[in-house]
Amino acid sequence: MSIRIFVTGGTFDKEYNELTGSLAFEDTHLPEMLRLGRCRVDVSVRTLMMIDSLEMTDADRALIVEQCRQAPESRILITHGTDTMVETAAALAAALAPESRQTIVLTGAMIPYAFGSSDGLFNLGSALSFVQALAPGVYIAMNGRCFEWNRVRKNRETGVFEAI
Amino acid sequence: MSIRIFVTGGTFDKEYNELTGSLAFEDTHLPEMLRLGRCRVDVSVRTLMMIDSLEMTDADRALIVEQCRQAPESRILITHGTDTMVETAAALAAALAPESRQTIVLTGAMIPYAFGSSDGLFNLGSALSFVQALAPGVYIAMNGRCFEWNRVRKNRETGVFEAI
Amino acid sequence: MSIRIFVTGGTFDKEYNELTGSLAFEDTHLPEMLRLGRCRVDVSVRTLMMIDSLEMTDADRALIVEQCRQAPESRILITHGTDTMVETAAALAAALAPESRQTIVLTGAMIPYAFGSSDGLFNLGSALSFVQALAPGVYIAMNGRCFEWNRVRKNRETGVFEAI
Amino acid sequence: MSIRIFVTGGTFDKEYNELTGSLAFEDTHLPEMLRLGRCRVDVSVRTLMMIDSLEMTDADRALIVEQCRQAPESRILITHGTDTMVETAAALAAALAPESRQTIVLTGAMIPYAFGSSDGLFNLGSALSFVQALAPGVYIAMNGRCFEWNRVRKNRETGVFEAI
Repeated sequence: MSIRIFVTGGTFDKEYNELTGSLAFEDTHLPEMLRLGRCRVDVSVRTLMMIDSLEMTDADRALIVEQCRQAPESRILITHGTDTMVETAAALAAALAPESRQTIVLTGAMIPYAFGSSDGLFNLGSALSFVQALAPGVYIAMNGRCFEWNRVRKNRETGVFEAI
Repeated sequence: MSIRIFVTGGTFDKEYNELTGSLAFEDTHLPEMLRLGRCRVDVSVRTLMMIDSLEMTDADRALIVEQCRQAPESRILITHGTDTMVETAAALAAALAPESRQTIVLTGAMIPYAFGSSDGLFNLGSALSFVQALAPGVYIAMNGRCFEWNRVRKNRETGVFEAI
Repeated sequence: MSIRIFVTGGTFDKEYNELTGSLAFEDTHLPEMLRLGRCRVDVSVRTLMMIDSLEMTDADRALIVEQCRQAPESRILITHGTDTMVETAAALAAALAPESRQTIVLTGAMIPYAFGSSDGLFNLGSALSFVQALAPGVYIAMNGRCFEWNRVRKNRETGVFEAI
Repeated sequence: MSIRIFVTGGTFDKEYNELTGSLAFEDTHLPEMLRLGRCRVDVSVRTLMMIDSLEMTDADRALIVEQCRQAPESRILITHGTDTMVETAAALAAALAPESRQTIVLTGAMIPYAFGSSDGLFNLGSALSFVQALAPGVYIAMNGRCFEWNRVRKNRETGVFEAI
């Protein structure tokens, strides 16, 4: 089974820039995280963008949708900022043909991977597993749970993804 | 969905004892790992034993089987040393009634969680997801993959779990 | 030997706030860092402020100077943001009487301690050692080196403290 | 100021071998630790041996003494297992000429650097600072403190180095 991973940025990949003292994006940590997890799933990683999801535009979402459509893989994992993950999931669900045989799982992190206390590795292991096991559809995998795209929201006060 | 987690020890939970300079077991790291992963799945953790799986006896395996049989939960995750994980999976498969509605996933780690470079958090996220998504049966989740109990072996030269 | 540690904030103690996605101050990590280093030096830690050193005012510096003056300890360690550490060192040197028997060492970090890749623990071990070994005076300990307060500057392009 | 670092192994450099499940030595972590600490002191690192200090023989100690004697640097840091660090310090003190102008500091760790919770980085920062600041002699730097070679013992019950 071959899985496509699209990287879009988000907290997952935020770095601490020691010269400016602020958070910024450099390269994705996905390959390093897969190595740390000793992942033996056949994956190919492609970075589509490297942005905070609060800054994601409609054009960015259109690009993500288009890349999924064109991907030969039937199983796709997208790393994404948590703030607008649900919007992107909705855009994907709206655009994919009803007969699509693709399983798409979006995931992210509340704490950057570069921090020792990140939830990123847990979420990556979780999302990679759900994307292998679930039927076609668009899902969000966070906090060890997996939600259909239209049955979830992020509670901004607690940072937790909840069923609706 | 409620998930039972049985802890049996294994590399996952090995500690460095600074007075003796050797590896040993103290308490399980599972609760801390679930907290780090911000896990919101309803789980209950119970430690059955805290041993290296090379030292696991038939009596130990019988205890694990019996605990699974008696568990009211239909989804069970077992943390286990990697060296004899396949044997315990076989014991579970042999003992569970064919009509069992339980999904049981065994997982472990190649590097102790207490080491910064552990694969444990990735494997825990993976196993917790497979156990939610898969049909009844006994499985091994390692390296981001999930195998039916009788279709896997650990390659002792590479440390990787492979399909057979 | 008893050592006073004054905490003023700086990169050392920056946290990632997972709800806002930005860096902020909560409590100091000093006690945790001393525990991790198994430090057996007799120290007492007091937080004077918790700020980015770019935001440190003259009033803040006056407070730091006054606290050092009143401290009964002859050896004082100050954790401080790196951007204006040299200014605070100069304020201390100007205010302390020439016959002062105090050894004061300022230190900081380029990467927050909460990040796995922090230089904070190294710098803390270094500063705590220099403050015990050096003659009275005001010093800056960074990058494993120790500079007299008026013979150092931070190179903002490289983030390195250099002799002048 | 140029500092020579001699590596002899010890807990500092113990690794977890994931195939055997035991602790072993591979390469030293010193260069990586110096990088993490953003160390800008002029050091040259040389590995003399890579052993547990409980296995250190008289011949090993003679080699360490000889290497210190021949080193052109007047400041030498030795990383060493904690169990026999005091014996090696005594061997160095006995062998060095009374008029030696060398400052030699031995240090180590209670927890391997490869573990997230290591005291190694703190001790390295501490020892590197003491070796720069102290007068000629042989010292042991542990737990943030520095002891003359003949005024210290390791308390094996607590793992702490104490003044005698």
